[in-house]
Amino acid sequence: MKLASLKCDRPDGRLIIVSRDLSSAVLASGIAETLQLAIERWDVVSHALQHRYEALNRGEVPAAFPFQASQAAAPLPRAWQWLDGSAFKAHSDLAVRAYQIANSWGDLPLMYQGMSHEFLSCSDDVAFPTEEDGIDFEGEFGIITDAVPVGISPAEAAQHIKLLVQINDWSLRVIGRDEMNRGFGWVRAKPACSMAPVAITPDELGPAWARARIHLQLHVWWNEDHFGHASGAEMAFGFDELIAHAAYSRKLCPGTIIGSGTVANTAYHEVGSSCILERRGFEILEQGAARTGFMKHGDRVRMQARTDTGDAPFGTIDQRAVVTGAIGQ
Amino acid sequence: MKLASLKCDRPDGRLIIVSRDLSSAVLASGIAETLQLAIERWDVVSHALQHRYEALNRGEVPAAFPFQASQAAAPLPRAWQWLDGSAFKAHSDLAVRAYQIANSWGDLPLMYQGMSHEFLSCSDDVAFPTEEDGIDFEGEFGIITDAVPVGISPAEAAQHIKLLVQINDWSLRVIGRDEMNRGFGWVRAKPACSMAPVAITPDELGPAWARARIHLQLHVWWNEDHFGHASGAEMAFGFDELIAHAAYSRKLCPGTIIGSGTVANTAYHEVGSSCILERRGFEILEQGAARTGFMKHGDRVRMQARTDTGDAPFGTIDQRAVVTGAIGQ
Repeated sequence: MKLASLKCDRPDGRLIIVSRDLSSAVLASGIAETLQLAIERWDVVSHALQHRYEALNRGEVPAAFPFQASQAAAPLPRAWQWLDGSAFKAHSDLAVRAYQIANSWGDLPLMYQGMSHEFLSCSDDVAFPTEEDGIDFEGEFGIITDAVPVGISPAEAAQHIKLLVQINDWSLRVIGRDEMNRGFGWVRAKPACSMAPVAITPDELGPAWARARIHLQLHVWWNEDHFGHASGAEMAFGFDELIAHAAYSRKLCPGTIIGSGTVANTAYHEVGSSCILERRGFEILEQGAARTGFMKHGDRVRMQARTDTGDAPFGTIDQRAVVTGAIGQ
Repeated sequence: MKLASLKCDRPDGRLIIVSRDLSSAVLASGIAETLQLAIERWDVVSHALQHRYEALNRGEVPAAFPFQASQAAAPLPRAWQWLDGSAFKAHSDLAVRAYQIANSWGDLPLMYQGMSHEFLSCSDDVAFPTEEDGIDFEGEFGIITDAVPVGISPAEAAQHIKLLVQINDWSLRVIGRDEMNRGFGWVRAKPACSMAPVAITPDELGPAWARARIHLQLHVWWNEDHFGHASGAEMAFGFDELIAHAAYSRKLCPGTIIGSGTVANTAYHEVGSSCILERRGFEILEQGAARTGFMKHGDRVRMQARTDTGDAPFGTIDQRAVVTGAIGQ
């Protein structure tokens, strides 16, 4: 099943069901008005959503309309909790080698709590204070849970993964290093994230959802540069383990979003990367200095996870970074 | 004006107006059903709330009922954003000296984003996984904002402080040190916080609200031990500066809660402390080793900010720590 949220005058948007090929959609009205409400009552509403989804795919829903990503908010336009992991060891290893940060990889996942009161759509311009902060993208996968009890095991946690999403975790690198060194995690370095327009249930991926990991390549373009297509399969900790980690001393509320961290593979030279920080890291290691700059006002980033047959199950993030000074705000 | 939220079957509770002496209360029905809704429409509803508050203080509200803290949820039982500062240099300096952590004090405030989908009441038992994690309290002050635009100055930020609160930021110290060393801030070390039952507008404090700081002593008792009475006046950064810091690259949503960090004074030997970590730190420095243990199952902590005349404007946090293993959950 595929779900999205139409932009409207309410902060949680309006839930729609999207056809498998992303060509058409129908309101979820009468079942759940918003995705947050749906995830709070998932056991009650998911069958009715699935039923309407199947009818939509068969072309049997008279109220269907063309799905346009530009009219979509983030699937969850806001959430009570966003916990972002850093589960790709290739990303962490590179950061340690290239930037001489302390090696904090260990037996437990790395995770911070990020801003969750606004997730940006896939297509709206994204505003930043200044280019001097080192504007960067981070291509990630994520999951959305229902209510998770405290102290759950990874095996139990897997049952609470209700939806999968694709995220751009915007990062301000100049600030980020300082905030990390201070030990309190990131606040100013991590403004609102963007989300691809469509959230999907795990069954939509067939065998590409395995071991609580998304086995898809995440294609990233920075302006005209095909920047990378790393696979989500290389997570050192699965999303089940990330949930169990987070739920050690807290319940997770329905609609909790948990992120994978930057999708990164050890085969960097073959697949490229999902953030500029990594490319710069390899330049430092191999050429003695970073040559690639961070994003400039007006730069575009496009992100699209693809199946083996070329489908994009989450749709596409395609948006422009703007510097607020330059647009008169 | 003083506000609280009655426990009910809805996650945001039910907004009530509490008399200045905390003896009586009245529903805010017809004005705003919850504190979250009130803060989202503060300019529209605050006058009506104030009007009813003044009538309540004059004993002119027939629908008034006795206020009982045990029936109160946290003033905001959940929030979209909780950003906790560490604005008392005495706390940070002690941590550096006693625990050999890196000195991360600087020109900018220390701040992390914490769990906000549940704030605990002032009186319910608080459950933790195990005593082995080093269960500790942290007495803090906090503020609640309305909508704050990105890039605001401290002077502008001061106008967005709508309510003041008193918080116990529960902390698991054994986990906390490891999480801090990893640079991602705290997730497992920081379960849900508790709040004193009453939120107040800044004018309630008269001259004790000055320079965007709460000039009250925060009395803390651990079981029968009067543990400390440090003053909120010594914040190195005011709440106005904490807001401006947080809003550098993000808007703050209405109902954002920002914390002071552990209230700590340089005159430790006179005023004591607001967390066990600090007392242990002084024992390490002065006696060569920590002698005080962390909290045990069944231990109580009581926290009450007091005016010069002995009033407790926020009411009192008075609750028991329980270890889930020991209560059969």
